[in-house]
Amino acid sequence: MIRKIKVLFVLFSTFIFSQEDQKIIKKIFDTCMNESKSYEMLDYLSNEIGGRLSGSLNADRAVEWGFSELQNLGFDDVWLQDVMVPKWVRGPKEFALIETEPGVTFNVDVCALGGSVATPSVGIKSNVIEVKSFEELKTLGKENIDGKIVFFNRPMQANLISTFQSYGEAVNQRTNGAMEAVKYGAIGVIVRSMNLRLDDFPHTGVMSYGTLLPSKRIPAAAISTNSAEKLSDLLKINPDLKFLLRQQCKQFDDVLSSNVIAEIKGSEYPEEIILVGGHLDSWDIGDGSHDDGAGIVQSMDIINIFRKINYIPKRTIRVVFFMNEENGLRGAKKYYEIAKQKKLKHIFALESDAGGFSPRGFSFTCNDLNFSKIQNWKKFFEPYLIHSFERGGSGADISLLETNENVLAGLRPDSQRYFDYHHAENDKFDAINKRELELGTFAMATLIYLFDKYGLN
Amino acid sequence: MIRKIKVLFVLFSTFIFSQEDQKIIKKIFDTCMNESKSYEMLDYLSNEIGGRLSGSLNADRAVEWGFSELQNLGFDDVWLQDVMVPKWVRGPKEFALIETEPGVTFNVDVCALGGSVATPSVGIKSNVIEVKSFEELKTLGKENIDGKIVFFNRPMQANLISTFQSYGEAVNQRTNGAMEAVKYGAIGVIVRSMNLRLDDFPHTGVMSYGTLLPSKRIPAAAISTNSAEKLSDLLKINPDLKFLLRQQCKQFDDVLSSNVIAEIKGSEYPEEIILVGGHLDSWDIGDGSHDDGAGIVQSMDIINIFRKINYIPKRTIRVVFFMNEENGLRGAKKYYEIAKQKKLKHIFALESDAGGFSPRGFSFTCNDLNFSKIQNWKKFFEPYLIHSFERGGSGADISLLETNENVLAGLRPDSQRYFDYHHAENDKFDAINKRELELGTFAMATLIYLFDKYGLN
Repeated sequence: MIRKIKVLFVLFSTFIFSQEDQKIIKKIFDTCMNESKSYEMLDYLSNEIGGRLSGSLNADRAVEWGFSELQNLGFDDVWLQDVMVPKWVRGPKEFALIETEPGVTFNVDVCALGGSVATPSVGIKSNVIEVKSFEELKTLGKENIDGKIVFFNRPMQANLISTFQSYGEAVNQRTNGAMEAVKYGAIGVIVRSMNLRLDDFPHTGVMSYGTLLPSKRIPAAAISTNSAEKLSDLLKINPDLKFLLRQQCKQFDDVLSSNVIAEIKGSEYPEEIILVGGHLDSWDIGDGSHDDGAGIVQSMDIINIFRKINYIPKRTIRVVFFMNEENGLRGAKKYYEIAKQKKLKHIFALESDAGGFSPRGFSFTCNDLNFSKIQNWKKFFEPYLIHSFERGGSGADISLLETNENVLAGLRPDSQRYFDYHHAENDKFDAINKRELELGTFAMATLIYLFDKYGLN
Repeated sequence: MIRKIKVLFVLFSTFIFSQEDQKIIKKIFDTCMNESKSYEMLDYLSNEIGGRLSGSLNADRAVEWGFSELQNLGFDDVWLQDVMVPKWVRGPKEFALIETEPGVTFNVDVCALGGSVATPSVGIKSNVIEVKSFEELKTLGKENIDGKIVFFNRPMQANLISTFQSYGEAVNQRTNGAMEAVKYGAIGVIVRSMNLRLDDFPHTGVMSYGTLLPSKRIPAAAISTNSAEKLSDLLKINPDLKFLLRQQCKQFDDVLSSNVIAEIKGSEYPEEIILVGGHLDSWDIGDGSHDDGAGIVQSMDIINIFRKINYIPKRTIRVVFFMNEENGLRGAKKYYEIAKQKKLKHIFALESDAGGFSPRGFSFTCNDLNFSKIQNWKKFFEPYLIHSFERGGSGADISLLETNENVLAGLRPDSQRYFDYHHAENDKFDAINKRELELGTFAMATLIYLFDKYGLN
């Protein structure tokens, strides 16, 4: 009988807790949709600062802005964490054309890949060999590649529901294309943009030369999907066409930059840190509204929302704007290094770095016990059409923080449009929908609230 | 023992069926994402035909185009179903301004509501009274309203996850505002656009005078949300400001138009009809890409997809392009009337009329037994991030077809951006994302496939 009463009591208190949570989550929702600052803050970051590649003046301005916004939001403490970052500068707009016969040319849309070397100032001009994979390079061998420009033209796969998966399966062309092609004597590489749409925007992004000596490095550029289709078509007609590429990008010495960190001390468990963040740097073309301005403003807006509903966190909430996610991850590494030194205990870390689109769920890195706990929270999200709680991956900036006990998570917005804008000139504020952005803030604030209230198992 | 074997057999065959369904659904997905015609067809309808209000030349062209596209897709039979439709013509672009004092004016963005009468050719100019509801009209009474222009300014509510719900709670201002305001002597109404975003687009849409005599009718216009905010702000400063509205729209006699219908006879149960459709008419501003060009091309593309995967429907699949959903629903009524005369048996009808955005699920009108059957199909959709199977509502064009036995459904895409474009000049092809559109086609084709294969209970 006592056992029965106990069971009933537990069921009843679970019910009461659950009802209270529903109410608070509804408050978070109402506040996000009516009083969020996400959109307004992103307007400033995107339109008044703009693209902010690591080591640039704009990156410095973004650090200053982030610091001052976090101060205005009334955190207990806001500070900068020094970190050395690479500085790569694009230089004047790149130029490329296809010459099908002397005097007959077609301009194409290209941009240098991040980290690439320049061409000679007159450009490189040569024959083109189109390939879909590194295996194909090997099959073709030096005899077919030497002295040519290699054109990597494997499209992102359309028939995958997650465009991030399509990206993952195509992006080695961009990251490793140059160092693979150079083995066979290529003098340059052009890579089909990581974009599922046919349009005129070349998409930049990081590439690597691995251990290749500076003298051996060849220029690498992205070409828009429309231009890639055109080049491929023209190659079918005339395999001997010439391609001219001119770019004047340059790698400088590393420079000093910063992560921006702010925290509110937990009222009950100050030693338990809940981290939420995104990356403050972006590529230099476009203004980085989706990648990752959205994640930055959503992360700090959570504190604005908590204040408005008078929610006092029991655990320490830390907002981190990581520097240099795009081409080095130096901010993330520095943050981890210091956290390890200080033996900080991150019980939960959440990153938003997949665009400011309608949130569909989260993906988690955690143990089974924590995952089953999290799955019990799905019911709080489903009324807001957030259904997808999957395992596997969180975010590049936080992944180093993984332990056997803690939970890492990434916000997973609808991914269908993400690669229309990713690393391209059109990743601009007008590609942001206010409601979608705010719904992301809501999803994140709700998950932070639940972790703050219930902690880990 | 035999019972056990039977149970095992049923479980096993369910498993086998389920695996087969998964495979076919994967094929539908791959085909939709790689070989869909939805985007290309919508490009033509939007960019070569454009806005197609009932009774317009463009609506005739859309009927011709629809007929010929359906023929090209290889249906067994394609025909037109005559229907008389209203013909309302907007005339030259509307004009409105706020005059805060003689000579000090601010232009504002307005458009006539569909069905409205014109103003006199010089316009109407009067004081403005701002209200949020019909109750407020009543409270203010004739003494405060007589001779004035009533400004309905209740915004769509932001803190609802379904923007269609926000729309439902605000739209009576547009549909009934004029007939309510005229009771108190108003000489015109301007209505805040049904738009959750602050921008410069006025959103049209149908309005009604009810039983009001033609001589008593007052002009009704929509005002953009930005202009509504401006007007409201200026009214606070100067309640005596004047508003000038000029519009030259006109209602003509009804004209002949058509529904466009195509079908493939079922190989096993030809008498059981599965209907899929949308509405072919649109408003005259914008090109009706989301409303409802998307639904039109998705509906017919299903047959293209079925052919490509060599799926032979067991039941009769009927594609219907309804005419005049926007301002009369005459096509839907005519279709129902003929279907009733012919005693046609529609076991399932699906409408897509909520935009070409990422599909989130469906809403169903059906009995409990059918709903529990449908819920068993959720597992087929979830791998494609389609999670929401709710009851309540299908689509305006098909709702008359409801019986106690059949199932009606509406595709439910993500609704966050829908009212950014709805009935406005920016509902254009460039607001369509190809993948999102195709995912809608996939969701619809999959549901049609399941109903075709398994029928009703």
